[in-house]
Order: sequence, then C-alpha cells, then structure tokens
Amino acid sequence: MTPAEPEKNKSPYATMIVLAVVLLVVLLTCVPYLVTIASAEGPAARDTADASPIFGVTIPPGYKQWELIAPAEEAAPLDEFRAVVGNRTAIDAYQAGKLPFPDGTILVKRAWKRKQSPEFASATIPGAATTVQVMVKDSKKYASTGGWGFGRFIGGKPVDEAQHRTCWGCHEARASSRDYVFTRLAP
Amino acid sequence: MTPAEPEKNKSPYATMIVLAVVLLVVLLTCVPYLVTIASAEGPAARDTADASPIFGVTIPPGYKQWELIAPAEEAAPLDEFRAVVGNRTAIDAYQAGKLPFPDGTILVKRAWKRKQSPEFASATIPGAATTVQVMVKDSKKYASTGGWGFGRFIGGKPVDEAQHRTCWGCHEARASSRDYVFTRLAP
Repeated sequence: MTPAEPEKNKSPYATMIVLAVVLLVVLLTCVPYLVTIASAEGPAARDTADASPIFGVTIPPGYKQWELIAPAEEAAPLDEFRAVVGNRTAIDAYQAGKLPFPDGTILVKRAWKRKQSPEFASATIPGAATTVQVMVKDSKKYASTGGWGFGRFIGGKPVDEAQHRTCWGCHEARASSRDYVFTRLAP
Repeated sequence: MTPAEPEKNKSPYATMIVLAVVLLVVLLTCVPYLVTIASAEGPAARDTADASPIFGVTIPPGYKQWELIAPAEEAAPLDEFRAVVGNRTAIDAYQAGKLPFPDGTILVKRAWKRKQSPEFASATIPGAATTVQVMVKDSKKYASTGGWGFGRFIGGKPVDEAQHRTCWGCHEARASSRDYVFTRLAP
C-alpha cells in the first residue's frame, strides 16, 4: 500500500519471533487458570465402579475447593455435621435466586460425626467423615427424577441401589417448591 | 535476508492487526483469572473505620469463596453454627500439616444462629448471620500476640476494643500447641 515505508524491509522472521513470544506469554499466563477450571469443574474420566447405581453420578474432582452454600446438623441417631458446597453454576444460581437450577449444577454434601471439642466444653467439631452426597442437574438425562441425578458415597464408593432408590422420593415429596433442593444459601 | 520472499511485500498493517488480535485474546482469556486472584487474595483499600481496634484487621474481600476448613457448633446460649474458611496460604499449610502457619495466612470464621429445618424434624440449619471473625498471620506486625492479628465484626463493622482485648488471651491459653489456632482441618 505504501511501498516506501521502512517496515517493508524487515525480515518476516522478526514477526514470527514476536508472535512466538506473545503466544508463550499467553500460555504461561493462562495455564494456571485453565488448570483451576479443569480441576474444579471439568468432567473426569472415572472408573464406572465409582459411579452411583441408577444415576451414574460420580464424586466431582476438586469439590472440596468449592464454595460453601450452608452448614447443617442432623440430630441423633445420625448425630452429624453437614456442609453443602456447590460448583460455580450452583453458586451463581443461588445468588441470583434462580429456580430451577440450570443444567450443569452440582451440589455436594459433606458429612461428619459430631465430636466434643477438646478445648471448649460448649463447642462441637467434626469427627470422622461419613458420607459424601452428590446431586447433578441434567434435565434431559434425569428427566424422570426432576432433572436430578443422585449419588451417595461412603469411603469414595457408591452405596447400593436400594439406598439410591430412596433419594428421589424424599426430595420430590419435601422440596418440590425449590427444584427438589433442601439446602438454602446461608446468609 | 531473503529479499525475494513474497512476505516482504505484505503491508505492515497486517502484522499490527495480528498482534492486536492476539493481545485482545490474551486480555479476554486472562482477565477472569486475574480478577479471581485479586478478589480472593489481594489487599484491598478499605476504610479504616472497618478495621478492628488494636490490630487493624479488616474483613478480606472474597472470603465467602474460600475453601472450607471445618464446620462447628456452639451450644446455648450462643446456639450457633460456625464455618471456618481459609485463603490459599492457610489451606496449603493445613494440608501439609505445617505449623506455625506462614505469614499471609488468613482464617475467617462465619457464624449463624441455629434454626429448625422446616422440612426435617431432625435437621438444624443456619438462621441469621451473627459475627465474622478474622485471624491474620504477620509474625512481625503482631509479634506480641503470637504473630496473629484478630478482628471480630458484626454487620461488617468491628466490635469494640474491650472485646478485641480478649482474643489473644484465650487463644494463647488454650491453643498454644497448634500455633494458637483452634480449628482443625475437617477430614
């Protein structure tokens, strides 16, 4: 276009080197972010033996890093603490007060036996971990159970089919007004 | 170097456009990551009226996104749920079983009144939020209190100096074997 400009005499290698450097910077800058996303939300190739009966739900990798939705307590005989955490999709829906939860929502309920604090008579703290319970929203795949797939795990392994048959009936009977989810976002 | 190559005849504007596009991609890709880091860990310019007396500790921005360390319960008359979360430095130290906690560790204890679940007779859930309590490790700044600065907040505002005078004595008396931190990592 302007053949007299001095840039015309530069080597094309200079442009390639600049591009290569820029791409290297992009990669180095973004890799930690991508790794975080992948480990927090990404689908993992998991052994099907680790998937729940009926629903095929697995424990999502990285769920311990997810944001807390609310703690809770179950009285005796269970005598447990619970803490429900959710992936980004879940948290965004909670914060927007959006129902039904969108596909891709995952909720995980951690649970522990309650234990007397050794330092404070008035305090109770987590003892041994007991179950991990997972709800996954996929309105097509789980159309017959309100769009939710369920998984209940002990020691990382799913409990039996009979126990998984009880999930939907209880959520359907008691939490239908809130898209079958009991837990509310703690203020 | 190779004056006969056709690239020599390209406009310099083409190179500039490619660079501009690449830079745009870099920015769009990395901004969410940088925002996450900044909101999760970064120091914030905060009103000093929001800083605790004695220690000058503030509520860290983004703490609700931090990883759960453990839930707990306080019996009546407090009758509260607690959930302690920590920044990345705190979680890494907990997972490594590393004591004392390194400088930069921040622990935040959220608290709520306990409330009967409307759906389950056996379940107790969070009611109104009560206090937010913060511990910040800075071994130089807080050398006279075990390296810890303390903040106790109600409705986002620090409580009075008299209450803040009680923090260190209790942590020193009861948790000296664990760098003055009561909360253990939930299994």
